[in-house]
Amino acid sequence: MTPAPKKPDWIAVDWGSSHLRAWAMRASGEPFDKAHSTDGMGTLQPSGFEPALLRLVRHWLGDRATPAIACGMVGARQGWAEAAYAAVPCPALSGNLTQPPVADPRLIVHIVPGICQSQPADVMRGEETQIAGYLAQNSDFDGIICLPGTHTKWVHVSAAEIVSFRTFMTGELFALLGTRSVLRHSVAKKGWDDNAFSEALETALSRPEALAGRLFCLRAESLLHQQSPQSARAALSGLLIGAELATAKPYWLGQPVALIGAPQLTATYATALRAQGAGPIVADGDTMTLAGLAAAYASMKETP
Amino acid sequence: MTPAPKKPDWIAVDWGSSHLRAWAMRASGEPFDKAHSTDGMGTLQPSGFEPALLRLVRHWLGDRATPAIACGMVGARQGWAEAAYAAVPCPALSGNLTQPPVADPRLIVHIVPGICQSQPADVMRGEETQIAGYLAQNSDFDGIICLPGTHTKWVHVSAAEIVSFRTFMTGELFALLGTRSVLRHSVAKKGWDDNAFSEALETALSRPEALAGRLFCLRAESLLHQQSPQSARAALSGLLIGAELATAKPYWLGQPVALIGAPQLTATYATALRAQGAGPIVADGDTMTLAGLAAAYASMKETP
Repeated sequence: MTPAPKKPDWIAVDWGSSHLRAWAMRASGEPFDKAHSTDGMGTLQPSGFEPALLRLVRHWLGDRATPAIACGMVGARQGWAEAAYAAVPCPALSGNLTQPPVADPRLIVHIVPGICQSQPADVMRGEETQIAGYLAQNSDFDGIICLPGTHTKWVHVSAAEIVSFRTFMTGELFALLGTRSVLRHSVAKKGWDDNAFSEALETALSRPEALAGRLFCLRAESLLHQQSPQSARAALSGLLIGAELATAKPYWLGQPVALIGAPQLTATYATALRAQGAGPIVADGDTMTLAGLAAAYASMKETP
Repeated sequence: MTPAPKKPDWIAVDWGSSHLRAWAMRASGEPFDKAHSTDGMGTLQPSGFEPALLRLVRHWLGDRATPAIACGMVGARQGWAEAAYAAVPCPALSGNLTQPPVADPRLIVHIVPGICQSQPADVMRGEETQIAGYLAQNSDFDGIICLPGTHTKWVHVSAAEIVSFRTFMTGELFALLGTRSVLRHSVAKKGWDDNAFSEALETALSRPEALAGRLFCLRAESLLHQQSPQSARAALSGLLIGAELATAKPYWLGQPVALIGAPQLTATYATALRAQGAGPIVADGDTMTLAGLAAAYASMKETP
């Protein structure tokens, strides 16, 4: 006889605009199985939220109701249930988890709230969980956490609280400019050129106001001087990250910096920061998401 | 009897990536009829260029071959026939017109060459014709010509030559960010707010390096502080134009400035420049295109 598959103590869920990922978790915080789909919040109608999650996790459910802890856009106003923002200064995990209505009695969903800042206006959903994960493993960290991505966050953490943060649309600009603008004719979808990246980074860091005037050069360089599409891709990244680092300098200059995110992206940011004399620590984004959701699960268990 | 429709002495053609426009012209440079279609270069295969133009101008053609003078992307490498760039410093109308092969004997097409700059690498196609039109009407103009559009050009003109120029992707960034990025949820397709424009313009002009960090505020302001989509639209425009003006300051500061373009867009730039103490002259883009094509027609007639 094949043994019945092991059931998780709880389920970790990262539910963004374009993806849905779930992990079968032990109470200790260790994952032993995972699943993912493209059922992002942005692709679903409200009536589709519960079925989309059930499609992914049904085989993990048992007789008793299994708690699922979810972070990301699932808690947005257009998500499954709005998990109201906590306002800085506050711990990364602040406020109550929000429970959306779930018809299936085998599942109870808890959504982690995002964090907001009034001035300058800013918001995050999902990154607070990764920050909580990092702080769960590095409880006395005091400094800057940078989370590169579609919307890169620079976060000032002190005394176990998020003090302030700032969002840069660098990842989204890179994708839009490289695939939707006139630059798409000159910028490769893949490939890289370390020198082109470094030169563009230096240009944008030393004269960040020049970004607006440098972008079209990528098109003209390929028309006039046969710049390769791979070099143009790296240069576009260098210009955008350079402009971001220039603006975010008050955050990272002379501060301990932790980079949390996908390995390739954090490596690019680490290269850029090291060129400026900073020595960032790098942590894996998925690992931090799980650690943060585990911290939320643990805190929920403590609350009667 | 109805008189036969008057035939033009020549045809003016403005053929860009997304539009095709033609005017029936008298030898004197006056238009007496016009036509347009959405047969832009970007939507056509090479075999479709001649039929697209004939669909638009056939009823103007007579027994003798009519010359058509064309500017814009029609002369690009992917256009009907590549009209090689002239290099700065040079007059706005430089080099020979290029004749693509035309099967219909009633039509001879001449394409105006674009202009390039090696360092920093930059190119224009179409704007050189508007500049030529402006200089044909203002022969002793010495100063800066700004042509706002999808790719705004800042052009230094001296002694009847283009000395240098710089392209900003401001119009394309405005469209991409407003309709394709996360900001689309917060930015109206139409509408305006003068105060939001002015404030954002000042912010970006005084701290142009902050552009990268200000864009996402437009999303957060609408989520947290109910900023109206019309205000967000004007603020996005103000941020982008402000960053452009800051970078282009060495061009316009203390110089005579002429703005050439669509009336609504030149009005926005004029407002921005006047707030900085500049007193730009405004000229209509279509009128300048026709004046420039007429200058090209006249110079062609002079060449044996």
